[in-house]
Amino acid sequence: MDFQQYYDTRKKLVNNFLEKRMEKRGISNVDDAMKYSLLAGGKRLRPILLMATAEAVGANGYDFLPAACGLEMIHTYSLIHDDLPCMDNDDYRRGRLTNHKVFGEAMAVLAGDGLLTLAFEVMLEQRNVKPSTLVEVVHETAMCAGNFGMVGGQALDLDAENRQITAKELKTLHEGKTGAMFIAAVRGGAHLAGATDEQILALTRFAELIGLAFQIEDDILDVTSTAEELGKPIGSDEKNNKSTYVSLFGLETARKMADETTKEALACLDSFGEKAEPLREIAKLMTNRKN
Amino acid sequence: MDFQQYYDTRKKLVNNFLEKRMEKRGISNVDDAMKYSLLAGGKRLRPILLMATAEAVGANGYDFLPAACGLEMIHTYSLIHDDLPCMDNDDYRRGRLTNHKVFGEAMAVLAGDGLLTLAFEVMLEQRNVKPSTLVEVVHETAMCAGNFGMVGGQALDLDAENRQITAKELKTLHEGKTGAMFIAAVRGGAHLAGATDEQILALTRFAELIGLAFQIEDDILDVTSTAEELGKPIGSDEKNNKSTYVSLFGLETARKMADETTKEALACLDSFGEKAEPLREIAKLMTNRKN
Repeated sequence: MDFQQYYDTRKKLVNNFLEKRMEKRGISNVDDAMKYSLLAGGKRLRPILLMATAEAVGANGYDFLPAACGLEMIHTYSLIHDDLPCMDNDDYRRGRLTNHKVFGEAMAVLAGDGLLTLAFEVMLEQRNVKPSTLVEVVHETAMCAGNFGMVGGQALDLDAENRQITAKELKTLHEGKTGAMFIAAVRGGAHLAGATDEQILALTRFAELIGLAFQIEDDILDVTSTAEELGKPIGSDEKNNKSTYVSLFGLETARKMADETTKEALACLDSFGEKAEPLREIAKLMTNRKN
Repeated sequence: MDFQQYYDTRKKLVNNFLEKRMEKRGISNVDDAMKYSLLAGGKRLRPILLMATAEAVGANGYDFLPAACGLEMIHTYSLIHDDLPCMDNDDYRRGRLTNHKVFGEAMAVLAGDGLLTLAFEVMLEQRNVKPSTLVEVVHETAMCAGNFGMVGGQALDLDAENRQITAKELKTLHEGKTGAMFIAAVRGGAHLAGATDEQILALTRFAELIGLAFQIEDDILDVTSTAEELGKPIGSDEKNNKSTYVSLFGLETARKMADETTKEALACLDSFGEKAEPLREIAKLMTNRKN
């Protein structure tokens, strides 16, 4: 399997879907601010993860583009709000000026709100599955994105600034902030593809573990990468006095944790055979990346 | 019919549902910020509108509390974000300090994000309707709340500050900012209750008209009410150089417009008979209110 080609094909499909969907213009120029961040590139990891999981279960990932791309909208809104002056106050993202730097703070708040809302709109346009399945998938996505998941994790992150937090607190924080949306992607893909309960159990564990490995790698990159490679300033965790896997365990131990967690994640896919090969490659990509 | 009792009963049901739902705590204290604004009182107009519309079509409004209360969460999130320093920069709302004044800006952004997300989660928990109907209702709610509706209207509002806008622009702005969520409430209630196409057509027109009348009345109250009655500062439109129906047409003409629009709205309900009596009373309440 040529994984690079696999990934690029799906990334192009996601980008095409998002561009096409954003051609339907709303009533104001908040659309421009929404498009600025949504169509600014990015790895499209969450939608591709959803598609690859659906494929691991035997379905065609292409069939679930609306659900997949809704996840990218949720991810993008979270970046816009996270970059705001009152939050992380970042000037650059994906190598470009952040949303509020271009459109102003008020419009950036609305662009995030608009993308979060549009995410649900688009997901509910997924038409080739049973409505009851769609209700379940979108409901679970909302749970993963909200105060039980991503938003909750970001709130914990706020509270964790300027104080030392424990390894356990850090885990809860990341399970919410980053892990929950990976779980939404993997479980969403599994449900849409009609996975068995047993498959869903194994895939959920897989998602939890790659979410953890991804976050450890993220903390490592913040100290070892360059701003060019990362497309955003490095060292921001230290600047903001944030507890990270590196600050808590040191660089070498953090590296070892990322490797072991990835191995454990891959073991969850043993029963899926050849069809899970792209999913395995994505797991490796997420935990040994340059940006 | 004792309308006051009708309204109070439903308001209590909405409040109970919201309080009960918020007992399910997420992983962080963003829940406290969410609850602060969500459980701060308020008229609960949108959920009661949904229920009264369902009743006008012959269903039991109580049956649709999850869908109804999702609308209140969307409304509340929009108020939190609207009050932010980068938006309207208001210190008081519903007679209490605004969310960011109590929890800080970053947490207020997250509280809004959390409520918007939870709104979809809760709506998708509506279990006594066909999943295909629920998908349709929640999809339409997202459309009304997003860049085609409320968020779009708020973006137009931003652009309209400090410049004179035309009556036509003002109408588009309000159709988005306020009207769209009334349409979501009325059409949502109608769909959930199994209304006919003809009924939905009449109710949609009704919703458009009461939305317009409500907004005109809102502009009137901003100049004629007191801060105590309104629970928020008066005169803020003039302070922010906002175009309003009063600034464009004068107070007397605005009053006449509100009255005529309300009459036209009521005419849309003619074929619904006795069962639409609460809906008629709500329309009158919305357009002749103290706060």
